[in-house]
Amino acid sequence: MNKYRADVIVTLKTGVRDPQGAAIDTVLKRTGMEEQPEVQVGKFFTVNVSAENEEAAKQKLDKICEEILSNPVLEKYEIKGFSQV
Amino acid sequence: MNKYRADVIVTLKTGVRDPQGAAIDTVLKRTGMEEQPEVQVGKFFTVNVSAENEEAAKQKLDKICEEILSNPVLEKYEIKGFSQV
Repeated sequence: MNKYRADVIVTLKTGVRDPQGAAIDTVLKRTGMEEQPEVQVGKFFTVNVSAENEEAAKQKLDKICEEILSNPVLEKYEIKGFSQV
Repeated sequence: MNKYRADVIVTLKTGVRDPQGAAIDTVLKRTGMEEQPEVQVGKFFTVNVSAENEEAAKQKLDKICEEILSNPVLEKYEIKGFSQV
């Protein structure tokens, strides 16, 4: 079994209201730090998976992202920085 | 003024307890999805800044990350995917 490590970014789907982002926007405008920050907030995960090969690891990772790390109704995920460790 | 867009990843500093990551670890182990996931949880932001040039934009972004998006006592930040829009 090989070990792989990946970064996962989970963000809201287009059109889903982002109250955390809106709150940060308000703060940045009020403090005069930035006029149009258009902040979007998401979640970031680092996950290890063990698998026979890269393809199996990616499949496992997809399953983890879909079932545990994101809510597919409201959120989308992106796997970045996939590498063997 | 030019507009720039960047992704910001905020994660816990080494040694800071990560209860969210530990909770996800527990779920992944209990469901048999992964034995040693070692999940780490962080936050992900997309931010727009307007500035005269790239250097000024990066300075502005650093200030926003330090003062608004992260808690420098517990968290570190990383600026990724910086580009002009």
